[in-house]
Amino acid sequence: MSEGIDVEALRADTPGCAHVAHFNNAGAALPPRPVTDAVTAHLRLEARIGGYEAAEHAEKAIARSYDAIAALIGAAPDEIALIENATRAWDMAFYSIPFAPGERILTTTSEYASNGIAFAQIARRTGARVQAVPDDEHGQMSLPALAAELDRGGVRLVAVNHVPTHNGLINPAERIGALCRQAGVTFLLDACQSIGQFPVDVARIGCDMLSATGRKFLRGPRGTGFLYVRRDLITRLEPPFLDLHAATWTAPGRYDIRPDARRFETWERNVAAQIGLGVAADYARAVDLAATGRRIQTLADGLRRDLAGLPGITVLDRGERRCGIVTFDVHGHQATDVKRELRRHNVNVSVTDIAHHRLDAHPVPAAIRASVHHYNTCLL
Amino acid sequence: MSEGIDVEALRADTPGCAHVAHFNNAGAALPPRPVTDAVTAHLRLEARIGGYEAAEHAEKAIARSYDAIAALIGAAPDEIALIENATRAWDMAFYSIPFAPGERILTTTSEYASNGIAFAQIARRTGARVQAVPDDEHGQMSLPALAAELDRGGVRLVAVNHVPTHNGLINPAERIGALCRQAGVTFLLDACQSIGQFPVDVARIGCDMLSATGRKFLRGPRGTGFLYVRRDLITRLEPPFLDLHAATWTAPGRYDIRPDARRFETWERNVAAQIGLGVAADYARAVDLAATGRRIQTLADGLRRDLAGLPGITVLDRGERRCGIVTFDVHGHQATDVKRELRRHNVNVSVTDIAHHRLDAHPVPAAIRASVHHYNTCLL
Repeated sequence: MSEGIDVEALRADTPGCAHVAHFNNAGAALPPRPVTDAVTAHLRLEARIGGYEAAEHAEKAIARSYDAIAALIGAAPDEIALIENATRAWDMAFYSIPFAPGERILTTTSEYASNGIAFAQIARRTGARVQAVPDDEHGQMSLPALAAELDRGGVRLVAVNHVPTHNGLINPAERIGALCRQAGVTFLLDACQSIGQFPVDVARIGCDMLSATGRKFLRGPRGTGFLYVRRDLITRLEPPFLDLHAATWTAPGRYDIRPDARRFETWERNVAAQIGLGVAADYARAVDLAATGRRIQTLADGLRRDLAGLPGITVLDRGERRCGIVTFDVHGHQATDVKRELRRHNVNVSVTDIAHHRLDAHPVPAAIRASVHHYNTCLL
Repeated sequence: MSEGIDVEALRADTPGCAHVAHFNNAGAALPPRPVTDAVTAHLRLEARIGGYEAAEHAEKAIARSYDAIAALIGAAPDEIALIENATRAWDMAFYSIPFAPGERILTTTSEYASNGIAFAQIARRTGARVQAVPDDEHGQMSLPALAAELDRGGVRLVAVNHVPTHNGLINPAERIGALCRQAGVTFLLDACQSIGQFPVDVARIGCDMLSATGRKFLRGPRGTGFLYVRRDLITRLEPPFLDLHAATWTAPGRYDIRPDARRFETWERNVAAQIGLGVAADYARAVDLAATGRRIQTLADGLRRDLAGLPGITVLDRGERRCGIVTFDVHGHQATDVKRELRRHNVNVSVTDIAHHRLDAHPVPAAIRASVHHYNTCLL
């Protein structure tokens, strides 16, 4: 046991632990056996009795996925949409907002490329303006600067990541949420890198919408994600796309959009993967997210300390409160070369790319990213 | 051997044939063993070495999926986007067209609900007008009526299904394509129900865009689909959503959209399922799509004849050329009851719903749908 985590049991549950030292959990974590088993069992059922027939048979498991995700973030099941990935989940929320010319979108300097490109596209399409709120001395969004921008008015949306992909910090989501609520401004939180890493509660944070992925710290299947939308906001947003699941065709030119968050979904889906997502959410809660958060913190702090003590290595992380994402530079070596060399020794890390962080005032051309999870052990 | 098909070999390849008589191929077909094996093998690899690391390892299989889909429809790999389902594939094409007020969208009376709802949404959003071209005496799109509408001008898009989900017919796609080319009007073909059922060639048809699913007659995994866009049209269409895979973030407010059809994709995907889609496409071609088409035709013709000979049963299909989708009514019984009763005997059929076909001039409230594939044998 370590920080309330039975590390040996977790590793025994994780087939990949026998094969790799996996520090790419911010890319895609190693799934626990119950997740992979649930997915492959459903695929076998589809092959045995048919895809639609298997879905009817698995009705309870599918419903469980909504309940499990809702329980994970302190929401109700009707506030959850299951979507193929976090990008499209975020898109379905973001692109549903009817921006007027001149309205402002406030974001962070650490926003990820996919969101940054979407901001730029919407700015061009609607005349809305995108503004990165300056950092504080720790590199995270400055709360006084955000408060000042909200005071100026004309803000239609605050769209912020909870944990950036590349610099180790945790944005002060709860305090951002409090400021947004005070200003009456819609708050969309990108929880792609926080979900599964530590407890994330939509009521405590006070976000109106939250998008996340299955494959990262939540340890779910690839090709899964979800969107939370606060109940009383749902019917005020018309999704950018509609199909026969999101809406009912009532007459040739008419439709009724469903009143729950599933209006942001498509009917067709990878049922097996979505069942796996629910299993992953239940697994994360059973392990205990607070304990997982403490364990990750301990591992990451230790890794940063050990790396900083090595000659020729610079740890690049920022943030008052730091997370399981550790970025560093090895002097005189390309990050991609280091990644490749580590991979030859069955050690998985990834590389961050400047083109993914164009709003960052202190960008690093490329860095090695080692992201730890509760099942990791010896690091150096 | 039957119509050039080795039925016994196909059935031996299809685990489901030992468990069910599957006549729900227009819903989701039974996958052949190589498809399920490819998907589950990749999922196991992800669990063993990590999701991103597995994708690097499977680089060739992923590239093969684009090549296999391109070969299947006579396109080039850079004209193919792999998308989570046919609905979103169609959406990415349809919603990228910048409709002006008053411009017309021509469609069929047999168009499916998801497309119909999207038409209605875009009509409301842009002022474009949607018009169902009348049927000919066989129930399929009337070519003289289409020619007359194209002659009137102001048509921005012809969006037509190749095979409707509910009435057995095959729309004359090649002749529609010829009329569109002559008029210089963009032609989007929904090939959801035709792909895998018989040969579909984009050059012969002359469509500009084509969307399709993996799970139906192609026998691929659920949660897979693809979009074809003719090369010289790609760069003229800005996708409704953009992420860091579809575009490169070049400066805070700027991006370059990639020049190939992958601009319609998202970066994150269910890699295992997409590998399975490629295997399904290669499998379909190896069996031979022309032979599959003949076999399905023979089975469906026989089923219609046999059903018509039974008391109390009315076959409802229309169309000059009919396909593997057979719809019928059992007098005095609800279609859903018949479906449930057949399911108890391990016979899979589905039910069509009037709410899915609001443009149909001759709608049937509900009917039983039995859709056959090359591996089916004894029907009655």
